[in-house]
Amino acid sequence: MAKPMARSDATLASACDPQLLDDLVAANRILSYHGVLEAYGHLSARDPKHQDHYWISRSMAPALVAAHDIIALDLDGNPVCAGETKLFFERVIHGEIYKARPDVMAVLHNHSPSLVPFCNSDTRLLPMTASAAFLGDSAPVFDIRDVDDEGDLNVCTPAQGKALAQALGDHCLVLLRRNGSVVVGDSVREVVRRAIFAERNARQQIEATALGPVQFLTASEIAYAKRVKPKDADRAWRLWKQQALNRA
Amino acid sequence: MAKPMARSDATLASACDPQLLDDLVAANRILSYHGVLEAYGHLSARDPKHQDHYWISRSMAPALVAAHDIIALDLDGNPVCAGETKLFFERVIHGEIYKARPDVMAVLHNHSPSLVPFCNSDTRLLPMTASAAFLGDSAPVFDIRDVDDEGDLNVCTPAQGKALAQALGDHCLVLLRRNGSVVVGDSVREVVRRAIFAERNARQQIEATALGPVQFLTASEIAYAKRVKPKDADRAWRLWKQQALNRA
Amino acid sequence: MAKPMARSDATLASACDPQLLDDLVAANRILSYHGVLEAYGHLSARDPKHQDHYWISRSMAPALVAAHDIIALDLDGNPVCAGETKLFFERVIHGEIYKARPDVMAVLHNHSPSLVPFCNSDTRLLPMTASAAFLGDSAPVFDIRDVDDEGDLNVCTPAQGKALAQALGDHCLVLLRRNGSVVVGDSVREVVRRAIFAERNARQQIEATALGPVQFLTASEIAYAKRVKPKDADRAWRLWKQQALNRA
Amino acid sequence: MAKPMARSDATLASACDPQLLDDLVAANRILSYHGVLEAYGHLSARDPKHQDHYWISRSMAPALVAAHDIIALDLDGNPVCAGETKLFFERVIHGEIYKARPDVMAVLHNHSPSLVPFCNSDTRLLPMTASAAFLGDSAPVFDIRDVDDEGDLNVCTPAQGKALAQALGDHCLVLLRRNGSVVVGDSVREVVRRAIFAERNARQQIEATALGPVQFLTASEIAYAKRVKPKDADRAWRLWKQQALNRA
Repeated sequence: MAKPMARSDATLASACDPQLLDDLVAANRILSYHGVLEAYGHLSARDPKHQDHYWISRSMAPALVAAHDIIALDLDGNPVCAGETKLFFERVIHGEIYKARPDVMAVLHNHSPSLVPFCNSDTRLLPMTASAAFLGDSAPVFDIRDVDDEGDLNVCTPAQGKALAQALGDHCLVLLRRNGSVVVGDSVREVVRRAIFAERNARQQIEATALGPVQFLTASEIAYAKRVKPKDADRAWRLWKQQALNRA
Repeated sequence: MAKPMARSDATLASACDPQLLDDLVAANRILSYHGVLEAYGHLSARDPKHQDHYWISRSMAPALVAAHDIIALDLDGNPVCAGETKLFFERVIHGEIYKARPDVMAVLHNHSPSLVPFCNSDTRLLPMTASAAFLGDSAPVFDIRDVDDEGDLNVCTPAQGKALAQALGDHCLVLLRRNGSVVVGDSVREVVRRAIFAERNARQQIEATALGPVQFLTASEIAYAKRVKPKDADRAWRLWKQQALNRA
Repeated sequence: MAKPMARSDATLASACDPQLLDDLVAANRILSYHGVLEAYGHLSARDPKHQDHYWISRSMAPALVAAHDIIALDLDGNPVCAGETKLFFERVIHGEIYKARPDVMAVLHNHSPSLVPFCNSDTRLLPMTASAAFLGDSAPVFDIRDVDDEGDLNVCTPAQGKALAQALGDHCLVLLRRNGSVVVGDSVREVVRRAIFAERNARQQIEATALGPVQFLTASEIAYAKRVKPKDADRAWRLWKQQALNRA
Repeated sequence: MAKPMARSDATLASACDPQLLDDLVAANRILSYHGVLEAYGHLSARDPKHQDHYWISRSMAPALVAAHDIIALDLDGNPVCAGETKLFFERVIHGEIYKARPDVMAVLHNHSPSLVPFCNSDTRLLPMTASAAFLGDSAPVFDIRDVDDEGDLNVCTPAQGKALAQALGDHCLVLLRRNGSVVVGDSVREVVRRAIFAERNARQQIEATALGPVQFLTASEIAYAKRVKPKDADRAWRLWKQQALNRA
């Protein structure tokens, strides 16, 4: 199924930037530690030098990923090095989003536990605090039934992947009806941050809903957050990395 | 109380398939690690070569089960080897389901925390994601009061066990009013998977209910899931086994 | 404040039954491990040979209790051995219940997290499963404001303790308005079991309430449970003890 | 940005009281262990001898704070020793509260998970048990939008800090609309205690609300709690410290 590329390409791409590789492995552990990823789901990073390649683990549980499990795929989901066969069957999500969104450098598909209730509800996921301002004026919802009558919930064909990328639009997170979410960002670290804060926001929104009407970020607060980067984002990354790697 | 069988039978049956034995022990640890089992509840596997025998631990907490605790019972709940006396008093659940469902190779009775609210409610447990599609168009509910006036909630007599098996029908999971649930499958690993995803589905359904009307899997999605096996089911099993055994 | 007793009495009482002592220490750890006890709360056991004495730890966090921290008090809360000064200020709860209930051999005061919502609600705590059948046709609620205008919420005077014992009546658990609960039983192990299952029942009742009307144990089921002791109660005790002591 | 002070001042202030230093480090660990602090948030203690200085960690995750990370700032947020540059950008919260409240000796800004729902709701946070009596007749809520049109949610300017201090008034805890809470007290230990019990109270209030109308502390109970200090407050501190430091 996976078509090997020419050797020269493979040689070029086989060297993942060490920092990026380290971040990818750490991110898999961090997201598992925080319960954002469990047995399923996957995280990728676009190669900064070969923008039509991305790095992702072989098909395996994220908590068990080590550096030697990270391989390169092209944007059609073919492995850059011949012989790789353990590929995520939903990897089309990554390729189609990288095609549609040149700004995106990392993609995560997960089934974050507190997001699932919002995947199956008409209640919109909205930002409660500045940390979740990236949700904007609400996360869009993609329903695979709009493009496929078959009944499968997984996003496996290019047509399904393209439709998902279209539903994502220029947002940072899209909910998949009955199938979790996809988070994108300009780096692995930004995606990790968004996924963790999305999960927290979802839980707090569920609890706030039990108390009565909920007050979300105002339009000016969302606009402000879009203009200004999170202050000291690496403070969280450093903590999370230490916690996750110490436990592993 | 337990009637020993003839020696030749015992010899035949005393050799549990090593892989099955390993799975049974791991499954007891995994279900404890995930909180699906706590002090009570029990898991069995039908012997693939002697379909009228099944393997189950002695009466003990699942988290403490080791290989030498696994014994064989016949479908009437008698130990295959004489002298076994520490038997689960609700073992009739296993025997009666194996009698009624030749396709079933593993049975679990548990009190999974998020399922209990559904055991005592008219709100039906319904699938939120593909992982819980095995719930079909809703899990049936068995009420022991329909077959017994005494007041005991435990399923201990053959008549009670038969009634429970009838309530299960051809489903994969039956809720027991005021007494947890029973999950069945074609292997130990399938039962473990179903029990863990049933617990998650229940929790997410409770939370989604707090947000408003909930959208469950469609009929075509449930039908699709019945036709197609979960992709890469062992990915989860490998992760769960490593987590549970590392902690033990 | 604490009046030392005569020496001969002290000598008699200073030997706590080793099994009881071991159970008391283990119970403090188990209840901490399960979150039923945290920094505050206390557990006592009546001395089986000197029924007007009971054993309890010095005033300290239950998770830190060791055998040498267990001391004897008389039913008025005086230490049997002179010189003990670190006494729980709510120990009157234990003495007054032992006076009022000759059948009670162990008493626990705690602020089990899921019980607190029921302490401050008109919604009654009712049994969801056989494990919580000891709640009967609902746990009574004691309001210290009925006997004291001062405003203190702690049960510190004999009059307050007597009123609490009266509210308990012949039940196994009484909720204290705005102050947690008291659980009693015929042994340390029974009290531990009841406290853990009360906490679980409360959590599951809160979640079931979110789903709609809740079906509790029927009158015949409650009556049955009163006639029949829990089957294999020590299975849970053994598991809990191993978990709690391994972690300590 | 930070203006160094004269050398003599620095020398005076550079010696933090060893007990206070130990408490500050332990408190950062304890609050992280209990989930009250995660990557963000900060805790400070006013210097008892130089009341216009306070001690706080450099800008970092609280779980990672060690003694050598604690530095002194003046009430305008300038470091007492020249050269410190890793300063919390919301440190104005601490200085302005110390200016407005001479009785306050410790300040904590956090995003305690169960408090966030109350930050974004008109449902008031009210005391359920004696441990949370410090909430009084309800925690006030500060909305930065009342003093700033820009859209930033962080409290970074003196004007914003002053407005927050005014909203706090003579209370012990103020909720920040869409931005967590601030807790104050007469010592680091008191602030830790209040923050942990506020989190628990919030969680229990959310759950109690699901059961129906909630009964909170009465006016006489709140008044009593204001007159009487918590009994044996250090019991909790000792437990929490041991738990948090053992885990670190």
